[in-house]
Formats: sequence, structure tokens, C-alpha cells
Amino acid sequence: MSAVLAPPATPAETLTIALGDRSYPIRIGEGLLGRADSFDGVPRSATAVVVSNTTVAPLYAAPLLQLLKGRHRQVELIELPDGEAHKDWTTLNLVFDGLLKLGADRKTVLYALGGGVVGDLTGFAAASYMRGVPFVQLPTTLLAQVDSSVGGKTGINHPLGKNMIGAFHQPVAVIADLDTLATLPDRELRAGLAEVIKYGPIADAAFFAWTEANLDTLLGRDPQALRHAVRRSCEIKAEVVAQDEREAGLRAILNFGHTFGHAIEAGLGYGEWLHGEGVGCGMVLAAELSARLGLIDDDAAGRVARLVERAGLPVHGPNFGGDRWLELMRLDKKAEGGEIKFVLLEAIGRAVVRAAPDASVRAVLEARCA
Amino acid sequence: MSAVLAPPATPAETLTIALGDRSYPIRIGEGLLGRADSFDGVPRSATAVVVSNTTVAPLYAAPLLQLLKGRHRQVELIELPDGEAHKDWTTLNLVFDGLLKLGADRKTVLYALGGGVVGDLTGFAAASYMRGVPFVQLPTTLLAQVDSSVGGKTGINHPLGKNMIGAFHQPVAVIADLDTLATLPDRELRAGLAEVIKYGPIADAAFFAWTEANLDTLLGRDPQALRHAVRRSCEIKAEVVAQDEREAGLRAILNFGHTFGHAIEAGLGYGEWLHGEGVGCGMVLAAELSARLGLIDDDAAGRVARLVERAGLPVHGPNFGGDRWLELMRLDKKAEGGEIKFVLLEAIGRAVVRAAPDASVRAVLEARCA
Repeated sequence: MSAVLAPPATPAETLTIALGDRSYPIRIGEGLLGRADSFDGVPRSATAVVVSNTTVAPLYAAPLLQLLKGRHRQVELIELPDGEAHKDWTTLNLVFDGLLKLGADRKTVLYALGGGVVGDLTGFAAASYMRGVPFVQLPTTLLAQVDSSVGGKTGINHPLGKNMIGAFHQPVAVIADLDTLATLPDRELRAGLAEVIKYGPIADAAFFAWTEANLDTLLGRDPQALRHAVRRSCEIKAEVVAQDEREAGLRAILNFGHTFGHAIEAGLGYGEWLHGEGVGCGMVLAAELSARLGLIDDDAAGRVARLVERAGLPVHGPNFGGDRWLELMRLDKKAEGGEIKFVLLEAIGRAVVRAAPDASVRAVLEARCA
Repeated sequence: MSAVLAPPATPAETLTIALGDRSYPIRIGEGLLGRADSFDGVPRSATAVVVSNTTVAPLYAAPLLQLLKGRHRQVELIELPDGEAHKDWTTLNLVFDGLLKLGADRKTVLYALGGGVVGDLTGFAAASYMRGVPFVQLPTTLLAQVDSSVGGKTGINHPLGKNMIGAFHQPVAVIADLDTLATLPDRELRAGLAEVIKYGPIADAAFFAWTEANLDTLLGRDPQALRHAVRRSCEIKAEVVAQDEREAGLRAILNFGHTFGHAIEAGLGYGEWLHGEGVGCGMVLAAELSARLGLIDDDAAGRVARLVERAGLPVHGPNFGGDRWLELMRLDKKAEGGEIKFVLLEAIGRAVVRAAPDASVRAVLEARCA
């Protein structure tokens, strides 16, 4: 635990998600969970609740609760079971039950301490408890730091589809303590790298080249490399979200790889593959579909596949068969009137959202998921 | 069914809830559910779903589905069990399951055909399905027409508290067909009158006097009287909601009688008393508390009690005992840091939200709930 309380190696950096009166800071740095000033600007409500899971809470909850008791009269911990399989109604109700038993009110601040599941689920609880209370994201996984904690998408899974039930509800702050990445299992680190890899192809060719050049350094958990990856990912996400908070258009590009990825997660049952693993494989499939449709050349698609493979992520998908694949993808939230919309590449650094002929999709699936 | 399809006796009237890009019309009139132009402005999505219950659907669903098939390629009906006891997770999931099985997407329009339970629950389903889809309120009870269908409060109950889980999600239109009030059971009509009676004391002394003068006419279901009651109630609600959509302040006055009323509903188990019955009794208690605190005189409190009694609503509450009463009311969403906030009267026509000494609250409860 000493890492959490140690003084920061370098000063924290702050980005801003510019959304008018819903704007909020993303603070990125070492040791942030142990510093009182990380929480500047968070409402000092009488009561507060830290929502975490049985894996993360033992690592970080005790000193955090101690620190938050300087801000709130009463702070309680709610521990959820760990894993994507628990991102459901039953677990959400554990949060509501806890809030009601504590007498939480409309001012009570929720803190989401953990990875994407804890953040998405706590965010949805905050969105819907008494029709909305403030919450803070304290992401402890690479995936949550570079993606899911930023932008206000919250929700839970339905057996038929990922994140089907949820809300747009922006946090009042995101505090990304890079020290927490030290305790991250290797598999989780690699899954997080999938979302880092994502930002280059959709928005920033130079960042993609940087990711290619620094992948081994990132896998070795070099603090400077991780800091840059988190900061640049959050910068790109912040720009996109500020332009299209509720995904009327542009924001959908952040779902590169997710149409295929969500289908894998739902088709295998949540928790079989990590979300980042599905996204990694999904990016390979989406890049190949882009090439097959003549939007990019095979070299560009090959760069995506090679980088995903180097990150230790799957580049071949499950063999559901074409019909089942299409059925699963038709439940994607981007689909309209039964037509699946894919995030495709027009170049490394530029994405487009469009439909694709079933035959082309099937051909990609036959090549990669046999 | 002929009443629904009959030509309107008088032209429909349209009010507007002014909320910028979330503004929407409330259409009030006879025969509206049978007229295509009632739905002007509602998006013509490929798929649509009518959510209703086993009581209302047999009365109005068939012709409505027929009419909506002129607007949407596919229209399906989801029938829920009837009653406040079903305004819960289990029933909400019936809606989600239905939407997913139908392949509903982000453009799918939901129509809430029924009373307050159907409207609140369907609204919350619309707020959270794929993080938000459009919905239309088709209120078929007096209570829903004058109150719950307007203003975007949606939600479900938790065993520990009324409407504890929900969202602010504005409908794209409210279509109040006055003909549906003809099939309303007497008990439901009286429960709806509680919310009509509410608007006078909190905002409009003249309307309160009109309600006193016309109560018997309303109980006799006179169309002109009902039309005026619905229109004036919606006008007052529209003004309040436009000023304070998310209940940061003013909007709380619409909860006159609800702090006591919700406690009765939760304490007895949902469905034992109708919501309007709880509100009726709650207004009597709140008016007496106002008088006890010297905010109004006994005559004013007496006028409220007499009108509630004339409407056939309960003016005495259950005997939970003072401790249990206070415990139930501390879960009210207006409470902060364990302090209960009441909507009290400073005059007939003017409300204020404030705390009250426990001793005064207990005295009122002892007088009225023994």
C-alpha cells in the first residue's frame, strides 16, 4: 500500500472534459488516491459511499476511506463481486440496497473505485438513485483510466447485449492514480492496451506510430510511457466527447472494434473474454473489413493486426458461425432498423461509421473466426 | 371503444412544456387516441412499442396499434401486470426483455398507455434502454393526466422507498385523451382528484376556490369540468417544471402531501392505498402541520381537509407510531443529512419547503393517525 501514499514522482496533470455546466477534470498522476487535493471540487456532502469490488477494495479502500473522512461526516464501503459477469441487475441492486440502508440522500457522493465494471455500474447507480446523485471515478485499471471512466457512459449488461441498460451521467471528477497500475494483473494490462491502441487508428496516426514504437515499454509498465498513453488517450476521448456527448454522431468512432467485440462478449457469456480482449480482436476484424471494402489497403489493416497481436491480445475470434455472428451484432446499439453499423477505417487516423454488405462481413468472419 | 374513435366534441388544446430543445406539447381533448394528428411531431421510427397493462390494454390498445401502424413499420404491445405493487425491477425487466426480443434500437419510440405506474415505468425504461430512447405519454387516468405524465420524472419503487430509482427523462409528447376518463373506476377518479386539489394550495388560490365550487361536478365526470381541471393542472405544472426541471428548488412544491403520502404507501406496502389516496391524506397532514407551525390559520387547514374529505379520500392516516413514521419519511428524496423536508403552506396558493420540529410532526400524527 505504500505506493498509494508515497509522494508523487512528477506533478499530476489535469485535463478538462468541456461540457458546459457538466464539465469536469481528469487528474492523472502517481499517488493521487493518497492526496487530499486530488478531490478538490468534489462536493463535501454529509454522507459518501465508496463502491468497489472484492479484488480492489483490499488494496486501496482502507486509506481512501480514511482520507475521505476528512471530507464527509460518514463514509461507507460497498464491496461488489468482481468481474463482467456481475455487471447486472443483481449487483446494481446491492448498491441501491446499500445506499438506502445508509440513508443516502440526493447530495450523497458515490466514489467508483475499480475498473470498468465498477465504474459503469456505480455510474448507473449514481444516475438513477433518487434520479441522480454526484459520483467520482477512481479508475484502477488501464482500461478504465484510458476509456471507460471518461465520458459519462454508464450501464449494465443484459443477457442479450452489452451495456444495454444505462444512462449518460457525467462524473464530477476522474482521478487516475497511475500507481494502481502496478498491481494490475498482466492480462488486465493487455486488455487495457487494446483501448490505448484504439485511439491511433480512429483519430491520431502519430499516436498510433508512438504506440507501435513503445508497445514493449508499455508492456514493461514504464511509468513515463504509461503516463503518456493515459494522457493522450484521455485527450482524444475528451475532444470527441466534448463535441458529441450523447453519441449523436462522431462519438461512435470510439466504438472501433466494439461491434465485433461486444458480440464476442455476449456470445461467449460475459466474463469469458475480457472486454479489452474482445475489442482487440474486434479491431483486427474491423480493420480487415475496412480493407475488404477498399477503404484502406492491406498494409494498414496488417499494422493494426500486428500491434494487437504484439500486445498479447487475441486476433482470431470464436467460431459462432456467420448467422449467429450477425444476429449478435444486430443487437449493437449503433444498429438501426436491423442494419448493423460498423466503425471502419478510411486511413490510420481516420474512422467512419457505416453499414457493410453481409457478404463482406461473413468473408472476414470466415477468415478470422474459423 | 366507440368513444375513442368518435370525433372530438371540442377542439383539442395544446400546452407546451418549455425546456429548450427538450420542449414538448401536451395535447388535451376528447378522442385524441383515435386521431392520427394527435401524434404530429413524434418521430416516425421503423419500430415502436406500446407499453400498457392488463387492465388498460383491452380497452384501448387494439385501435391504437392499428393507428400507429400508419407511422411505424412494426408496432408491438407489451402488457404489464396492473398496480403500484408491480412498479419494480421485475416488471421493468419485462419491458427490457420485450424491447431486446423485438430488436428495438436507439430510435425506437415507446408509448406509455395507462396510468401513473405504466407512465413512470415506461419512462424509466425509455430513459435507460440503450441509454435513452424517445417516448410518448398516453395517460388514461386522471392522476396521470394532471400530474405524473408531465414533467419527465420517471422511476420505479424500492421496497424501502417510493420512486427511489429513476431518471429525469422528458417525453416527446403527452396526449391526454379525456374520453379515457369515462372508463376509470370511481376510486381511481377520486385518487386523481387528489393531485388536482394539490395545485390550488401550492400555487393558485383561485383554482382552489374553483375546485371547491366544482368538486361535485368533477365527481360526476362533467366533461367541461374535467377538461378545465386537467388543463389548469397541466398549466401550473408546466410553469413550475419549466423553471426547475430537475427539482433544484421550486419544483419540490409539487410534492405537497407526498412526504406523508409516500410514507403511507411504503409503510403499508405498495398498492394497499392508491398513490392519490396517500397524497390526499398527506395534504391534510401537511396543512395541519403548517397550521401548527403558525404558517397558516386553522381555517385554511380546514378548507384543505374538507375538500379532501368531500373527494372521498382518506383524511386519517395509518397508525405506524411516531418513530416508524419518521423513519419512513427520512427516506423521502427531499431529506438531506437525515433531516426531513416538508412542503408546507404559507397561504392557500403559496407553498414553502422546510424542515419542522419532530415534536410538531408527532403531534399532527397523533391527532390524525391514531
